[in-house]
Amino acid sequence: MEKLKRNDRVSVISHVLTSSPNQIFTLNHFCQMFDAAKSTISEDIDLVRKCFAKFGLGMIETVAGAAGGVRYLPFPVNGSLNFINGVCHKLSTKDRVLPGGYLYTNDIMSDPKLVNTMGRLIASQFYRQSPDFVLTVETKGISLAMAVANALGVNAVVAKRDQQQGQDWPFVSINYISGSSGKIQTMSLAKKLVKEGQRALIVDDFMKAGGTARGMIEMMSEFSITVVGVGMMMLREMDVKRRVEDVRSLMIVKNIDEDRGATVVPAPWISNL
Amino acid sequence: MEKLKRNDRVSVISHVLTSSPNQIFTLNHFCQMFDAAKSTISEDIDLVRKCFAKFGLGMIETVAGAAGGVRYLPFPVNGSLNFINGVCHKLSTKDRVLPGGYLYTNDIMSDPKLVNTMGRLIASQFYRQSPDFVLTVETKGISLAMAVANALGVNAVVAKRDQQQGQDWPFVSINYISGSSGKIQTMSLAKKLVKEGQRALIVDDFMKAGGTARGMIEMMSEFSITVVGVGMMMLREMDVKRRVEDVRSLMIVKNIDEDRGATVVPAPWISNL
Repeated sequence: MEKLKRNDRVSVISHVLTSSPNQIFTLNHFCQMFDAAKSTISEDIDLVRKCFAKFGLGMIETVAGAAGGVRYLPFPVNGSLNFINGVCHKLSTKDRVLPGGYLYTNDIMSDPKLVNTMGRLIASQFYRQSPDFVLTVETKGISLAMAVANALGVNAVVAKRDQQQGQDWPFVSINYISGSSGKIQTMSLAKKLVKEGQRALIVDDFMKAGGTARGMIEMMSEFSITVVGVGMMMLREMDVKRRVEDVRSLMIVKNIDEDRGATVVPAPWISNL
Repeated sequence: MEKLKRNDRVSVISHVLTSSPNQIFTLNHFCQMFDAAKSTISEDIDLVRKCFAKFGLGMIETVAGAAGGVRYLPFPVNGSLNFINGVCHKLSTKDRVLPGGYLYTNDIMSDPKLVNTMGRLIASQFYRQSPDFVLTVETKGISLAMAVANALGVNAVVAKRDQQQGQDWPFVSINYISGSSGKIQTMSLAKKLVKEGQRALIVDDFMKAGGTARGMIEMMSEFSITVVGVGMMMLREMDVKRRVEDVRSLMIVKNIDEDRGATVVPAPWISNL
């Protein structure tokens, strides 16, 4: 293959890093790809790093050590507050409040662009804790959990609400109290999906009293897995004590009113990004 | 801002296009971003197009007309057959066959890297039909549907199996016969999620007799929506007639045996990519 120019290498490196967030690439990987010297690749990567930083496209970090190299982190997210304000605006329209005071969010959870950006924002708060996987419970949080996992370069593990017979490996089930209904519910997780000693990041779409998140934490405890954090799309503001503390939520639902719509605002930490 | 060099522009253009598959960007978008002339940007994009093509990173297409510009398509997928052979190999190990002849796939559906590549492969077969959204039914196909939707730059709409009261907008429900159980089941879709006249691509993880896919097709017919195709991760080989024809599946499950494991092979079209 003819020798490539810097332009060409920079284009390919930008693509490769962007496509595989939080995955470590050795300099040698690119040296072999382009038949180029380490010093050349190192300069290429410096150039890409500066461009990404200048345009707010994410960080390129150097990881030292034997297994070292460079990795792309798709955050900080450019214009986070504007973005979250936009989602809050969508969620605050009157016609979203359903009978029973539910907030309709399915259209938002269906949009990969919105979900991916929300996922990057949640990932930005937890990547320093190096989770081995993201845990959610079916169904509504799955797309967000996948987006967070994608941004962190790890798997998204889904606990089941109804364990269908024979559909899974040997599994562990726990009972938990759903905050909104007050009913005892069951969630199950296949034993093969996770390993003792791993680190989990819990992600879901909505938290009220925190019963479901509490259930996921207890499930992780059954597996001797450390929970490094809890990330939510929305947190319902409430006076009573939650079953889970230290939750990072993108948005706060202040009020849900069938006549006037919901009041959804960005969580305070978003303004400080 | 100081004028950027070609290296810088190429890095940013590569990132922007890679991050937003199938989304049209006008040349003007980049002209403004870099304060550069159209001819300059046009040369930048040509360079990126050639690099991506040379390294098998996807296509950059020029879209003509008033709403025209360039868009990135994350296919063809480099080394498709090798990749699918690898997934088949994983799926063919003996310990994956569960009591009742079920095939354990949850670990694969949890891995964003595998799911995203499978999603790009399915998307590559249907993007010419310009679907407006991807449709799946909860739960196991959701991550794959999101990946296909992401590659196509459209939404992934999830039909529900159990319509919980009040959790959704007014919805349409249909009954369908699940091929594997022979039982009548229900699926529901919120009316607000889709519009008459749209085009749907149906995606799911596994098809046997095709009862569930048939249900999704009938659901689309209720909404006067055209189904442009059916994409599956796996198709079970069987002698009886399926309820759905013209299915594009990545893999064929030839046999599931509790003692010897499953036999999973790439679908013939994968070899022709």
